[in-house]
Amino acid sequence: MVKKYRIGVIKGDGIGPEIVDAAIQVLNTLGINADYIELNAGYEYYKKSGKPFDNELFDIAKKLDAILKGPLYTPPHEKEFKSINVLIRKELELYANVRPFKSFKGFSLREFNFVVIRENMEDLYVGIEGMFNGMAIALKIITSEGSRRVIEYAFKYAKKHGFRKVTVVHKANILKVTDGLFREVFFEEAKKHPEIVADEIIVDTAAYTMVKNPEKFEVLVTPNLYGDILTDLAAAIVGSLGLCGSAQIGKYTAVFEPVHGVALDIAGKGVTNPIGEIESAKLMLYYLHEKFNDNYLFEKAMLLDKAIHTVVENWRILTPDLGGLYKTIDVVKAFEKALAINT
Amino acid sequence: MVKKYRIGVIKGDGIGPEIVDAAIQVLNTLGINADYIELNAGYEYYKKSGKPFDNELFDIAKKLDAILKGPLYTPPHEKEFKSINVLIRKELELYANVRPFKSFKGFSLREFNFVVIRENMEDLYVGIEGMFNGMAIALKIITSEGSRRVIEYAFKYAKKHGFRKVTVVHKANILKVTDGLFREVFFEEAKKHPEIVADEIIVDTAAYTMVKNPEKFEVLVTPNLYGDILTDLAAAIVGSLGLCGSAQIGKYTAVFEPVHGVALDIAGKGVTNPIGEIESAKLMLYYLHEKFNDNYLFEKAMLLDKAIHTVVENWRILTPDLGGLYKTIDVVKAFEKALAINT
Ligand SMILES: CC(C)[C@H](C(=O)O)[C@@H](O)C(=O)O
Ligand SMILES: CC(C)[C@H](C(=O)O)[C@@H](O)C(=O)O
Repeated sequence: MVKKYRIGVIKGDGIGPEIVDAAIQVLNTLGINADYIELNAGYEYYKKSGKPFDNELFDIAKKLDAILKGPLYTPPHEKEFKSINVLIRKELELYANVRPFKSFKGFSLREFNFVVIRENMEDLYVGIEGMFNGMAIALKIITSEGSRRVIEYAFKYAKKHGFRKVTVVHKANILKVTDGLFREVFFEEAKKHPEIVADEIIVDTAAYTMVKNPEKFEVLVTPNLYGDILTDLAAAIVGSLGLCGSAQIGKYTAVFEPVHGVALDIAGKGVTNPIGEIESAKLMLYYLHEKFNDNYLFEKAMLLDKAIHTVVENWRILTPDLGGLYKTIDVVKAFEKALAINT
Repeated sequence: MVKKYRIGVIKGDGIGPEIVDAAIQVLNTLGINADYIELNAGYEYYKKSGKPFDNELFDIAKKLDAILKGPLYTPPHEKEFKSINVLIRKELELYANVRPFKSFKGFSLREFNFVVIRENMEDLYVGIEGMFNGMAIALKIITSEGSRRVIEYAFKYAKKHGFRKVTVVHKANILKVTDGLFREVFFEEAKKHPEIVADEIIVDTAAYTMVKNPEKFEVLVTPNLYGDILTDLAAAIVGSLGLCGSAQIGKYTAVFEPVHGVALDIAGKGVTNPIGEIESAKLMLYYLHEKFNDNYLFEKAMLLDKAIHTVVENWRILTPDLGGLYKTIDVVKAFEKALAINT
């Protein structure tokens, strides 16, 4: 009998609800056996309810098999409203943010296939900031446990996915203690994986290389903030943020979300590109397959991967952000057709 | 009578001496009336002399009209050896790091012309780091004075160079106090320049936009670390780090250096690309023209700018890093020819 999965759903702000609905429709078309449990969080929810998220959200979330999530909005000018994304990462201990970047024919200028694995809880994201003696000070915190957890994950990920090199990104020429620690832990862990090449690159050179020679990269592992900047950059190299999904791997569960933001300007118009969320749903299927040793889901993930390439590269059923004239609903229908061919 | 300038020269590590010599030869060809005073600093000097720089370096430097500098090496694995670049910025109060990025025909994929003005002394570069309770902690420090100084400079720069927009880069959605302060000071200063459009962009979106739509940018002003990453990225968009120069504007004097590093692998082989250093020399001529109201130098800077485009875009006298077969000496000779045509 097929296991029935319990998937949490955070629809999010802006275009979030549209793309999460689209992704769930595609999962239904694929025949995924799941209950979807909606969890409330976000800036829009906050404006309606006065609280940024449901009280029991984290208790419930921890017991779910996985969570499919849309983007959440953090207004830069509202000083009291802290990022819910960051809070979710902290509460659910989502220590590894995994963002695969593979070129799409007709979008990317070069051919490449690399994965950025970003430490997801420490660094300047710890949220310790204040004014002291007239200076604004924020703490950048790196621990060896936090570093080890994500670095270990990166080496295991590389092996499982057939990569032969893991590269640590840092700025240890300047930040000798903090980034120095991340770098040290990396080379310690590397010794346990002699079959994988361990390399290092300074963050500014990483940005340069990502544009000039992205094919040189395989798995990159990086402190939080560099990962934030480099993954937006990587999405640009792919051709669009709208094509990229991510997995946030945690202690209790995992959260899958697109790399892009809330795109308030096009929300509700039916023209949103759901591919980033569908990519994230694909990563969720891989994750559930591994976690529950469910080979049926592995096959489904493969089918979905193939369908994404069919719809985007071959049929070019593209929304306006990708230069197309199609609507979100057309993309969802294209997936029905693409999946019908193969299933 | 023409003023005779007193120019400090820090040749630097790796390819530094080759490119600084090349730039000085080009300045001589241009007929710049200057004394060049060599100042010792760098990792190679440290290995010979036991000290990272001459004792009187900063006292002398402060009195010079400008300093032409090559790259300096900071080994990431030597914990005691701190970055001399950062020290020079601090001692000479080089508060604004100005890096212009203009597309080169035949190298850049798009046409653009923007300038990144990077705060150059604060942020994570203050060098306050240590281990506390088993955690590695570094301080990110932003002050309103430090921010105001570089932001004021950015607005003035925009006006002087005919730009109509200045954009502040930040991550104030996460770093509400530190980047929040930088952002606040920016919008305060913006009020004093109503004729300039004041815009803002989150650093990850800035990285994305720089690849996708660099033509949208005019002047960007940014905290130190984002500037470090974004300028390497910008150099990749131009087509090569080897084509980019920078000006570091300070309280006492200014320092001109290429954006690229020491390229230890090709040092001493005579194939180094001197264009980044020659670009920096051009920025130095502009600076001296402004500082001393010397219109003769303005003309010289214009001639040099034209010669750079002639040599690189039209004649394509390119070193191997740019796909050419020429040597450093050939590039210098090409400048002699190009400048002979116009002077
Ligand atoms: C929305 C924001 C808090 C987030 C981050 O900075 O991590 C986003 O940019 C991301 O990359 O997931
Ligand atoms: C060499 C290094 C200290 C320097 C920096 O990080 O600022 C360099 O990358 C730069 O951009 O000037």
